[in-house]
Amino acid sequence: MPEEHYRVILRDDEVPTQWYNIVADLPTPPAPPLHPGTGQPLEPGDLAALFPPQIIEQEMSTQRWIDIPDPVREIYRLWRPSPLYRAHRLEKALDTTAHIYYKYEGVSPVGSHKTNSSVPQAYYNMLAGNTRLTTETGAGQWGAALAFAAEAFGLSCDIWQVRASYESKPYRAAEMSVFGGTVVASPSELTQAGRALREQFPDTTGSLGMAISEAVEAAAGDPQASYCLGSVLNHVLMHQTVIGQEAVKQLALCDEPGLDYLFACAGGGSNLAGISFPFIRENLEGRQEVRIVACEPSACPSLTEGEFRYDFGDTAGMTPQLKMYTLGHDFVPAAVHAGGLRYHGMAPLVSHCYHEGLIGAIAIGQREAFEAGVMFARAEGIIPASESNHAIAGALRQIRATPAGEKPVILIGVSGSGLLDLPAYTDYLSGTMPNT
Amino acid sequence: MPEEHYRVILRDDEVPTQWYNIVADLPTPPAPPLHPGTGQPLEPGDLAALFPPQIIEQEMSTQRWIDIPDPVREIYRLWRPSPLYRAHRLEKALDTTAHIYYKYEGVSPVGSHKTNSSVPQAYYNMLAGNTRLTTETGAGQWGAALAFAAEAFGLSCDIWQVRASYESKPYRAAEMSVFGGTVVASPSELTQAGRALREQFPDTTGSLGMAISEAVEAAAGDPQASYCLGSVLNHVLMHQTVIGQEAVKQLALCDEPGLDYLFACAGGGSNLAGISFPFIRENLEGRQEVRIVACEPSACPSLTEGEFRYDFGDTAGMTPQLKMYTLGHDFVPAAVHAGGLRYHGMAPLVSHCYHEGLIGAIAIGQREAFEAGVMFARAEGIIPASESNHAIAGALRQIRATPAGEKPVILIGVSGSGLLDLPAYTDYLSGTMPNT
Repeated sequence: MPEEHYRVILRDDEVPTQWYNIVADLPTPPAPPLHPGTGQPLEPGDLAALFPPQIIEQEMSTQRWIDIPDPVREIYRLWRPSPLYRAHRLEKALDTTAHIYYKYEGVSPVGSHKTNSSVPQAYYNMLAGNTRLTTETGAGQWGAALAFAAEAFGLSCDIWQVRASYESKPYRAAEMSVFGGTVVASPSELTQAGRALREQFPDTTGSLGMAISEAVEAAAGDPQASYCLGSVLNHVLMHQTVIGQEAVKQLALCDEPGLDYLFACAGGGSNLAGISFPFIRENLEGRQEVRIVACEPSACPSLTEGEFRYDFGDTAGMTPQLKMYTLGHDFVPAAVHAGGLRYHGMAPLVSHCYHEGLIGAIAIGQREAFEAGVMFARAEGIIPASESNHAIAGALRQIRATPAGEKPVILIGVSGSGLLDLPAYTDYLSGTMPNT
Repeated sequence: MPEEHYRVILRDDEVPTQWYNIVADLPTPPAPPLHPGTGQPLEPGDLAALFPPQIIEQEMSTQRWIDIPDPVREIYRLWRPSPLYRAHRLEKALDTTAHIYYKYEGVSPVGSHKTNSSVPQAYYNMLAGNTRLTTETGAGQWGAALAFAAEAFGLSCDIWQVRASYESKPYRAAEMSVFGGTVVASPSELTQAGRALREQFPDTTGSLGMAISEAVEAAAGDPQASYCLGSVLNHVLMHQTVIGQEAVKQLALCDEPGLDYLFACAGGGSNLAGISFPFIRENLEGRQEVRIVACEPSACPSLTEGEFRYDFGDTAGMTPQLKMYTLGHDFVPAAVHAGGLRYHGMAPLVSHCYHEGLIGAIAIGQREAFEAGVMFARAEGIIPASESNHAIAGALRQIRATPAGEKPVILIGVSGSGLLDLPAYTDYLSGTMPNT
């Protein structure tokens, strides 16, 4: 048997003790969010109605390291540190001299990285005396993650799921229920917004924008409730940096000269930020020279084809304006399977890093993504999430372009498990999937 | 943070190097299988048409340790050693002083323990020059495991899935396809047996017995094909002992005085045997005194309500006769969700151990099983397989009967992930699930 590493697993007391805030290290400061009414930079007080104080502090912080509270680490330890694998069998299948590693977040309770942020968000809401969380979900990964986290801290959780997903993906709704969440199809009869939408569009299958309106209304009408977000904002991205911190440590145990390429999928940006920001720090401090590549779907290419400007975070234009790469807040992406990547913009911090040249980006069609995912599954025994397939496909492009004999070290962020995405694989294997 | 273990993970080079054959250590020899035609004890030659020589040797062996070939260990290393967890949060939820551990096989490529045997079976068939494997599958766990293993060694794999499952569980069929398997609903048009059954029963939704007939016929008609079995036989049980060997080693790292109870679900018997046989050896050699409890579904209680006698392994009465606890080969269990536990008999080696008092058994209703599974999921962040819920429920009975202050050490075998069983959870949560 080869003596090389197959998987690098840290001890359970090596879960990171701090989140990494990249704002402290950026060569230029990112542009502030603007108040939707006044157009002026947002003040902490403007967010007080929405978020608990610790979340607002984290959202605005310029401090490099933020302590992870013990009760949050306790829950993280159910699945963290997540494993880093050397993809020996994928290397063999590709007949490449490249060294391929992947960091796997599918081991989490809901099979994706989303719990890294849902757990602290639930915790800080509990500290603030809230007893109920509300949110929206599309494919259902964020909804399931928040349901799990709410249950862990004794809070209730109401999730508005886009009706089209609710009906076509019953497994995700079941998962949210197992973790104690209450799921309703949106638009629903439970909110004014929902009722109005149903009256106006009786046949609507819903949208993320509609579901957001309902979840926000529900939280606004209940002083003990709080609305939670699963991506885009600074504090969410920061929570995800446990992924990259672990990966830096794990790769250091692998007798490699350094990492050459990092591929991660990017929708709202929290997965990409989580795994890449600690490597950007490695680059900025001169310890490594990692080329970081955001892999976005060609159906929703905010970085590669969007404009860098202020735009709203939601469809209805009610949120603060964020300086980001955007396709326009009224952009409606094609109904690709990777629901987690269908967002019109890109997180402001990721956008800033891209604009400053700290990361690169490519767009991947979904047929190319699933072709890569099937090859990965057969070689490595893990069926990746639809979203993660974009990162694998990005890595495969690079590997296939590697001159014979060169040994680049490549890390792929596999953000989740594809077990609940199996119908998408059926679509791919049947040969009917369009490439975008 | 507590200093106690949360999970005990062995290094990837600590995958067991040998399988454990309990036959070498049994105080009394188990009764031999009988030829279905002559009624005489089976000879190795009788199996030559069905299995490759190494499998026959293992099936008949009385040698205590059998080397695991390196190419099999290579594949095992994709997910083995599997983790052992201390269930701190479940202990808290139960308000118990018991120490609860669980060994989790859901990390395998198909989310269950089945790959521990499918991989060596595919390997030995490849060595024997076979290029195609056939099998039947009910819920789909074994079919997916064999598809994965066949692909790993470059073999094709044809799976006949009971039509009712094929239609109601499309995710499993998709999983088999991702791993390169060809899945057809049984009865099919591809075999004489299937065509005859469809003519005789045009509306049939199939059965495991029908699917076996088709898979066996397909292999018999192709000299390069071989039929594979996922449970019951000695060699399958032996392959699964990697689970128990790892658990013995992992528990020894946990500063406990010794294991008091082991709960594992039992259908055909391979999961129970895999985790318990190495602990039976601990008991027989006087190192530990573990009470081993097989948890079977009350809808199919072969150990607790069956007879210990010779019976056929299949419904049609075509296999060798096996000395086992059986409800009769024509017994049709209720359509409980734990498809993997719906077998009329119990593996001969497990039956022998039960008859000799080396293991005990209890029967669990499915509502009790799912109640335990939901509690486990919310505490530990892992949704267990329908089958595994029976083991968790068995452990919960014991824990709730533990006098205050006592600290029994309890191990639960969690044989798989329940992500593809989520519709069963929906059935439970809706309040409509019958208890048997």
